[in-house]
Formats: sequence, structure tokens, C-alpha cells
Amino acid sequence: MSLTKIKRANQMTEQIHYHLSNLSLFQACDSVFIRELARNGHLLCMQKGQLIFGRGESANRFFACLSGTIKLFRETSGGVQAVVDIIHAGQILGESSIFHTHIYPVSAECIEKTDLISLPLALLEDRMRQDTALAFAVMRMMANQQRQQDHEIENRTLKNAPQRIACFLLGLIDRNKTGRITIDLPYEKSVIAARLGMQPETFSRALQTLKRDLNLDIAGTRITIKDIQNMAAYTCNACSSEFPCA
Amino acid sequence: MSLTKIKRANQMTEQIHYHLSNLSLFQACDSVFIRELARNGHLLCMQKGQLIFGRGESANRFFACLSGTIKLFRETSGGVQAVVDIIHAGQILGESSIFHTHIYPVSAECIEKTDLISLPLALLEDRMRQDTALAFAVMRMMANQQRQQDHEIENRTLKNAPQRIACFLLGLIDRNKTGRITIDLPYEKSVIAARLGMQPETFSRALQTLKRDLNLDIAGTRITIKDIQNMAAYTCNACSSEFPCA
Repeated sequence: MSLTKIKRANQMTEQIHYHLSNLSLFQACDSVFIRELARNGHLLCMQKGQLIFGRGESANRFFACLSGTIKLFRETSGGVQAVVDIIHAGQILGESSIFHTHIYPVSAECIEKTDLISLPLALLEDRMRQDTALAFAVMRMMANQQRQQDHEIENRTLKNAPQRIACFLLGLIDRNKTGRITIDLPYEKSVIAARLGMQPETFSRALQTLKRDLNLDIAGTRITIKDIQNMAAYTCNACSSEFPCA
Repeated sequence: MSLTKIKRANQMTEQIHYHLSNLSLFQACDSVFIRELARNGHLLCMQKGQLIFGRGESANRFFACLSGTIKLFRETSGGVQAVVDIIHAGQILGESSIFHTHIYPVSAECIEKTDLISLPLALLEDRMRQDTALAFAVMRMMANQQRQQDHEIENRTLKNAPQRIACFLLGLIDRNKTGRITIDLPYEKSVIAARLGMQPETFSRALQTLKRDLNLDIAGTRITIKDIQNMAAYTCNACSSEFPCA
């Protein structure tokens, strides 16, 4: 390898090391392990619509999302998708295949331009077997995901479509805010509809109902909520949690 | 303590030890740990409708279900429940509070007469910190629960009510069976409806639709399916998995 190439490889490793050190999952890990991970990591820049991995595929890498947004989904043989989670910057994905005989249990696709680090699953698994602090960090992450899925199941059981949209919007708001606020939808309405388990037409109709019931201003993807507490009362009455919830 | 009392206490410990040794979670644990758990365990016989723990309560015990059935649920301040899981014999519950600052993240209530072992959470947590095989067994259990929740979210997104009931019924059938079969519903229709996220009236109507579409015989809680493959085609076409699925 030429000196220039070595220098570039080292810079790349430093960059990956920097990003990994900032992930909450690795906060309790020593820098020797993070450096080893970084040496074996690749930076990936993926476009909207690109598949990161497919459900049922053999898994030997996991991924850290640096920027962008990813949908995790399951798909029927007819190509109909159910979105089961949305992944944002700072989260990891693909790691749970360790517990599913190294097969990805869901598919992952970028829903906008996304930067990722690809990392060897075997390094993570080996380290978890030696380091119970890391194993506990993974378990805490899994427990939080489980609580979120429980909340999702509750939402689909107890809330109507406008209430589910209101709950989603409240989740975008700084928990200390009250009164009036303007927010931008973080991704396309079709993706939000899919995450909330609605057909796009149902989402549009429910958003109009919400607009009417709560006197919202909606201009494209920008929504002004005139009274956060009013919106909280509208949706949280049908929920086991109160705004601002975790 | 009198000799009779000591003898009785020892018999109880032996009985709990026997049950714990048979739980899949503890298969990789040495008998010293299982004996310690057993010495600190209590057998509980609970009736239908009894609460084992409430969401938000401080947690210092977890539980192994020996017989009976338990619903895990979240509840609004108005008392409306969303059932997020059903626990059967051989499963444990309450353990995930370790990762939620020792607060139970859901409520648990017996939906029939249920035998349980109550065990100290601290012993499990301490042991998981020393024994990565146990930590991995807990993680595998959590990963399976997560996959089941993903499947539940998919079901609620892609299947109509009769298809969801058909999916539930197929889950009760031995995976090697084909052709005609008679099954008994494992618990009350109202509980099945709640687990499937339906109002009881919706469940009744959907069951009648299913009966008509698949020519089922229904007598009380006994259902005869005339062609398992036909039922699989009816529901699995709207699913990412095929019968028999995990």
C-alpha cells in the first residue's frame, strides 16, 4: 500500500472511531475494543430506496446509523410491507440477528440519503460474551425497543387514526414545550402512514379530522399546533401514558 | 423451627428446584445457582383475576409460570386495557424490570387459576452479571419476544379480523398436522379478542365470517377445521411468514 493510501485508511479508521465513541451503546466499552471495531468498519453512503439487508438473509454485519432514516419492515410474498420500526441517527440495526441463528429477522431500507458504519457482528458477539457491561447495554436497548413495541400495540388497540397521528406529532416535540409550536414532519407522509399502520388514504383523512378537531395549521409538511396541552388531552386520554411520555 | 417445619421447608425447596431445573432459561446454569434461587423462592397459587404486579410498581421479584395463563397489559387512567402478551407455563415474567430502573413496565393478571414461583430479581441480575451464558439466554428470550411483537404489529397492519383469528388458530396446531383437526380454544373468547386487539363484538362477527368462508364447525369453544392448508392459504397470503411458522 502506498503511503497516501495508508494515510487515507488511517483517517477513515479515525473517523469511524470518533463516531463509534459517541454511540450510547459503547459508552461503557474501553477504547481498545472500539479501535478494533473501527479498524474493521466501513463507511457506507446509501441512497433513498437502497436495501441494507433483507429478512432471512445470512447476517455477518451490523450497522450504526450516522445520519438519515431507515425503515425496518416485514414483507408478504405479494410485496406488501408492514413497517415495524424506524431507525434514526445514533441507533444500531442488525445486531439482533445474533439471537436468530445469524439470520436478519427483518428487512432494512433507507427512506432517505443515509450514512452508516458497517461492522462485523462476530466482534460484537465475542465482546458481549466477555464484557457483561456491554451485554447489559444491549439488553437495556432491547428492553426499550420492547417497551416501544408494546406502546405501538397499545396504540393500535386503543387509539383511532387521528389520535395515533396526534401521538406521533407529540413525540416530535421537546418535552418541556407548552402552548403553540410549529413542527416539520421528519419524513414523507407515506412513511409516517406506514409506521402508524395506516393506508395513505386513511392517513390523509385522519390528518384532516385532526386538523378540524384541534384547529391545526397544515402547510405541506409543516404543522402548527396551537395548544400542545389540548393535543395531549385529545390522544393521551386513550393511552396508558401521559404527555410527555418516554 | 420444629423438625416438621424444617422438613416441610426442605420439601418446598426441592419442589421449586425441580421446576426451575426444567425451565429452558436455566438450562445452562449450574445447580448451585438454581439451588440458591430455589431456597429464596415461594410457590404461589393464584386465582383468576388476581393481579401479580401492576405497571409502575417497584420490582424486586420475578416469576416463573408453572401452570395456568397470565395476561400482560397496559391500562389507561379510564381503566381500558390493551393486552400486549399472554404468558403460559414454562415462561417467566417481570424480569425485564431489571432494565427499567426496577419498575414493572406492564401489569400482569391471572386469567385462570395459575401456579407460580416468585423469585428475587437481585439474584437473577447478579448472576447475569457473572454468567454470560445466562445473559445470552435472557437476550435470546427477549429477541424472540421482540420477533413475536413484530409479527403482532404486522398482523394488525396487513390482516383483517378473520385472518387474525385464523392465524391465532393455526398457532394452536401441531406444526406437522395437515388435513382435518379439532381444537379447543385455550382460554375465553374475550381474552383471545383482547390479545388480537379486537372488541368482543368484532371478534364474534369475524369468527362467523371465518366459519362461513372456511366451512368450520364451531361448538362452544371447540372448533373443527376441515382443511388446515386451506386455512393457511386464507391467512398466510397476507403475511410475511408461511404456515407452519415459528
